Amino acid sequence: MELHSDPDRLLPVDPRTRDIARGLYESVADLPIISPHGHVDPGLLLDDEAFPNPTELLLRYDHYVTRLLHASGIPLNELSIPDRSGGAPTADPRAAWRRFCENWHLFSGTASGYWLRHEFTELFGLTEQPDASNADAIYDRIQEVLERDSFRPRALFDEFGIEFLATTDDPLDDLAPHQALAADPSFTGRVAPTFRPDAYLNPANPAFVGNIERLAAWSGSAVDDYAGYISALEERRAHFVANGAVSADHGVLQPLTYDLDASDAAALFARAVRGELTDAESTVFQGHMLLESARMSVEDGLVMTVHPGVYRNHSGATFDQFGPDTGHDIPVATTYVDALRPLLQRYGNIPDFHLVLFSVDETSYSREIAPLAGFYQSLYIGAPWWFLDAPDAVLRFRAAVTETAGFYRSSGFIDDTRAFLSIPARHDMSRRLDSAFLARLVAEGRIDEPMARKIAHDLVDAQPRKVFKL
Amino acid sequence: MELHSDPDRLLPVDPRTRDIARGLYESVADLPIISPHGHVDPGLLLDDEAFPNPTELLLRYDHYVTRLLHASGIPLNELSIPDRSGGAPTADPRAAWRRFCENWHLFSGTASGYWLRHEFTELFGLTEQPDASNADAIYDRIQEVLERDSFRPRALFDEFGIEFLATTDDPLDDLAPHQALAADPSFTGRVAPTFRPDAYLNPANPAFVGNIERLAAWSGSAVDDYAGYISALEERRAHFVANGAVSADHGVLQPLTYDLDASDAAALFARAVRGELTDAESTVFQGHMLLESARMSVEDGLVMTVHPGVYRNHSGATFDQFGPDTGHDIPVATTYVDALRPLLQRYGNIPDFHLVLFSVDETSYSREIAPLAGFYQSLYIGAPWWFLDAPDAVLRFRAAVTETAGFYRSSGFIDDTRAFLSIPARHDMSRRLDSAFLARLVAEGRIDEPMARKIAHDLVDAQPRKVFKL
Amino acid sequence: MELHSDPDRLLPVDPRTRDIARGLYESVADLPIISPHGHVDPGLLLDDEAFPNPTELLLRYDHYVTRLLHASGIPLNELSIPDRSGGAPTADPRAAWRRFCENWHLFSGTASGYWLRHEFTELFGLTEQPDASNADAIYDRIQEVLERDSFRPRALFDEFGIEFLATTDDPLDDLAPHQALAADPSFTGRVAPTFRPDAYLNPANPAFVGNIERLAAWSGSAVDDYAGYISALEERRAHFVANGAVSADHGVLQPLTYDLDASDAAALFARAVRGELTDAESTVFQGHMLLESARMSVEDGLVMTVHPGVYRNHSGATFDQFGPDTGHDIPVATTYVDALRPLLQRYGNIPDFHLVLFSVDETSYSREIAPLAGFYQSLYIGAPWWFLDAPDAVLRFRAAVTETAGFYRSSGFIDDTRAFLSIPARHDMSRRLDSAFLARLVAEGRIDEPMARKIAHDLVDAQPRKVFKL
Repeated sequence: MELHSDPDRLLPVDPRTRDIARGLYESVADLPIISPHGHVDPGLLLDDEAFPNPTELLLRYDHYVTRLLHASGIPLNELSIPDRSGGAPTADPRAAWRRFCENWHLFSGTASGYWLRHEFTELFGLTEQPDASNADAIYDRIQEVLERDSFRPRALFDEFGIEFLATTDDPLDDLAPHQALAADPSFTGRVAPTFRPDAYLNPANPAFVGNIERLAAWSGSAVDDYAGYISALEERRAHFVANGAVSADHGVLQPLTYDLDASDAAALFARAVRGELTDAESTVFQGHMLLESARMSVEDGLVMTVHPGVYRNHSGATFDQFGPDTGHDIPVATTYVDALRPLLQRYGNIPDFHLVLFSVDETSYSREIAPLAGFYQSLYIGAPWWFLDAPDAVLRFRAAVTETAGFYRSSGFIDDTRAFLSIPARHDMSRRLDSAFLARLVAEGRIDEPMARKIAHDLVDAQPRKVFKL
Repeated sequence: MELHSDPDRLLPVDPRTRDIARGLYESVADLPIISPHGHVDPGLLLDDEAFPNPTELLLRYDHYVTRLLHASGIPLNELSIPDRSGGAPTADPRAAWRRFCENWHLFSGTASGYWLRHEFTELFGLTEQPDASNADAIYDRIQEVLERDSFRPRALFDEFGIEFLATTDDPLDDLAPHQALAADPSFTGRVAPTFRPDAYLNPANPAFVGNIERLAAWSGSAVDDYAGYISALEERRAHFVANGAVSADHGVLQPLTYDLDASDAAALFARAVRGELTDAESTVFQGHMLLESARMSVEDGLVMTVHPGVYRNHSGATFDQFGPDTGHDIPVATTYVDALRPLLQRYGNIPDFHLVLFSVDETSYSREIAPLAGFYQSLYIGAPWWFLDAPDAVLRFRAAVTETAGFYRSSGFIDDTRAFLSIPARHDMSRRLDSAFLARLVAEGRIDEPMARKIAHDLVDAQPRKVFKL
Repeated sequence: MELHSDPDRLLPVDPRTRDIARGLYESVADLPIISPHGHVDPGLLLDDEAFPNPTELLLRYDHYVTRLLHASGIPLNELSIPDRSGGAPTADPRAAWRRFCENWHLFSGTASGYWLRHEFTELFGLTEQPDASNADAIYDRIQEVLERDSFRPRALFDEFGIEFLATTDDPLDDLAPHQALAADPSFTGRVAPTFRPDAYLNPANPAFVGNIERLAAWSGSAVDDYAGYISALEERRAHFVANGAVSADHGVLQPLTYDLDASDAAALFARAVRGELTDAESTVFQGHMLLESARMSVEDGLVMTVHPGVYRNHSGATFDQFGPDTGHDIPVATTYVDALRPLLQRYGNIPDFHLVLFSVDETSYSREIAPLAGFYQSLYIGAPWWFLDAPDAVLRFRAAVTETAGFYRSSGFIDDTRAFLSIPARHDMSRRLDSAFLARLVAEGRIDEPMARKIAHDLVDAQPRKVFKL
């Protein structure tokens, strides 16, 4: 089967509305990419080496893709994911690629399938749907492109038009790659770290005690010294700020916040580092630290992003065999109104404090997040995240939040990806969808076209700059 | 930028479907307005004085509008809302108006923005989008219109084609304005009070004890006499019925109903008036009184409307400074199936008992409310309320409930507004959207056009008359 | 009013998209019907007698239809449903039919209305909307058709193109009708039983103790012997397998699973058969038996289907008077991620174990079910069920799950009906809607038309065969 690239893809099917949408899209299609949250490895740009092969580049690390192949019955090791339990041997890249191509039809209609189509047609010039018969030819074709100098990470960074790219980093990371990139006169892009302290704030995290020990060793305070712990976190944040960070990112199961006094917090902390907290106590301490993190953001200016509502590593056996980020993090119902009230009471209307709330529970968009962001000055509506970062879901998101909160309480697009090659596909998707949504409002007589044009531009440019203080 | 009024606004974008929708809309566009629930002050029509200025009329009391300006960083006092804590001085109307006009783009795509466009173009003849440069000119233009005799409340009441308008009133209100209006031969409209007893039924309401004391003083019974309390409520309802009321409205956090025996209820009440109930006990007593209110409706015929699911006054600091209804009432997840069962077991199939259920949690529409209303004879599906009273949300509502419960279990449109001038904009919006929804069903071959025409008419006319016993 | 049958019904309104959808639909419209879950009585096909009259055929047993008439104020006995409490006499079929026709407008826009339109026009050749004036003529017209030999159940089975039809049966059913049908050389269709053990697994079910006694009597073990109980269930499943069953169906309030050890389970069971369990203990035991049922499915190969989330018999008075399945089973919020984890930990990636998850809570589609099915090999997404088995709801379902899980993790269409005549209408509806959904993806440039054609075919053919092991 042939593989087509439709220049009008994702635009509304009604011809008049499509015309309006096309005009809006064309006005923003070539604007620079601002990516304030994602998971690209900064070393990729520092080293600027050729991508090794199609499987490493497009398959192995993309758990959106490997999960669906796994669901169809393919063991993860056959997709080149290493078996850390020492079980089955890991397939070679070309064998893994064949499994992918044989099952290309599984991705029809999915977000991953959409991005891969974009990459296949726009970056690699493929003209056939992958299948069992052409898997090797496609592998060779992509491999050939990967070896071109014009396909090195820095060349792509420029070609993609990336103006700002945030990575996600451990609080104790020395940020040497960021420093080296910033110091390199031959690289003019801006690559900023992001402070991601979850495993230092949640006593239920298996790495918590080890992390606190490492943090204490770095700061020189006692492991169970709460004041030292808080100071050390503040100092690490300062290190991130000094190296260009604009935000701190928080992943939690529920966005609970608790307002403990310092002595209660210190007592919990002392027991936490001995692994003595009950689950309920861990939840309270983590909620306290989410509130503390907001305080730190108020003080040091880092934008606070919160990604709640995901049950991590749902399949214990898969986690044991293949580790985290292997496709079985599953959303759960998430509520914000009660949970975040202690934080919003304190900091919800503080000038220059920015809190961006994400959700993987769509029901919260119209019911909670848009109403909250339509009042609190500090609160911005995060772009659709994870499973909701897909065409229909994005349009549902806009429809759910806009009537209550308008366009100017939303964060602008967040790609949140570790798949470097998918960045332009994802931002292009977002621009098409916002154009489609705005065009419908114009066609329905709800806004006028010049206003739609201004909004389309602001959503790509002014709004992410404002929300992320760029 | 120019401001346009599209005669086909909100109709479907597909040309053939739009044609069908336009025909349906035109058949109902000029029918009288029936408004069985809202918050217009009856004194407005009694006094019939000119509206003072654009800010008082369109901005200050519309917390849909002020909330979004607040979110953008504008303090409420700069929007002419009085600071009751004695803090910052309140802006003069013209200064507040300027802040609004400078930020007009924030309302693009919102329900408020849609209604204001309607009012600006249809009532004031504006032809430019408000902005910083034309704020004063627009203010003057509107001010000039407000001073016309044809723009007095009673003249507008007639011009808007309002046949029935319900207000919302305190149980101890003497209803003198309603009596005066009814007695005034020069005013031929029908303006009915609505019994709204929340602050007399919920011991957790800060005004509860004071209200019970006032109620006891009126009735002559002891403050802690439960039987006297029930009788007094019944007598106040009778006063409302005698003055034309058709419904009693209940706002609760969750629609819980409990079936207490009278002695348990009396014991709780005696402690409630001393402020001694725990939160859990307050919830139980309020749930008991919701069931009691249903009993009273069965007996006196007042339609029972229930508006659950809103966390009131979420921002304590804003409440302290500016009072209630200042934009931070936030929806929460709401469930009905278990909560309402005691009520529905008793009264769900009683002839002539009408219970209208509203929701601000969209998930309940297809899951709970439509299935309940598709069985219980007494239960009607309330129109989309508050944040959901917006174009896309209304279409989602119809799509969510119609396949299960059809059109004839829904309440007809409820404007629920204190913004008198927005009444025609809101009812017109509803008529356009129902026409759009019906037209799609016709274009998809699911209903025939004559049936769609009958339904469009019934939704505006027969259905609200039946549900609200007009 | 005339009654029309639109050959393009349910296809998208945009002309170009409609053309694509029509092509897809025509490619699958005449494929055989595979119905892996439903409630048709096998005796209907065994006896092959003429349907008695329109009311018995179309009204009395269809609680989708009778519930909405009940909501409009018509007592169920006037719809020919027997009053088992000995109250009001039951209306004769023609009188009941008149009540239905008088209220035909109530069904506009509903799923039931859609199916009835299909049946009226395609099977009975009606050309007028039912109303009070033509009720008797329509009754006579349908009665006349029912008396034709070509309208006997077996003739319709062939005409409808049913290849596979599953019934739903009690575990102790001897399955004699299935055996007789299988042995009858004049009947070439495949009619399979389905094992439905709810009332043997849930101690809170009023029939539980009696059922366990009957099961023990059949197996010869002691009533309170847990090992005997498990063995007896396994033997009854083997009887079903031997008679062609492909699945076991489980209806539960919440899809909770618990992993009890055998001695704890045995102790609970011994008390359960004496009616001694608390509600919480019943829930635990039922959750344990859901996990046990999964184990049995792993061992005997029966596909496990789970239908959770329905509050049964909400109106106690109606249940007392008219029994179950009379229109007041109401959906409730349902969550799967925590509840099913014990089951998925054990069996979620077992080859050849198939678990099909249904939902009547739409919020779970994008949030939980699609993400789970996009990883676990055993888990398939059940088709929209009950109130969600309707045009707009089906399209919402596809939009909610496809972007995360694609098309190949869904079950294929399930009609779940006891209304034999509605089977082709329902499957035709599903084929139209999947064609409509796929056509939109093609028109939006997200998939290519040949792939859409393959998927449309697979959804009707390969996918249900794979999921239900046909």
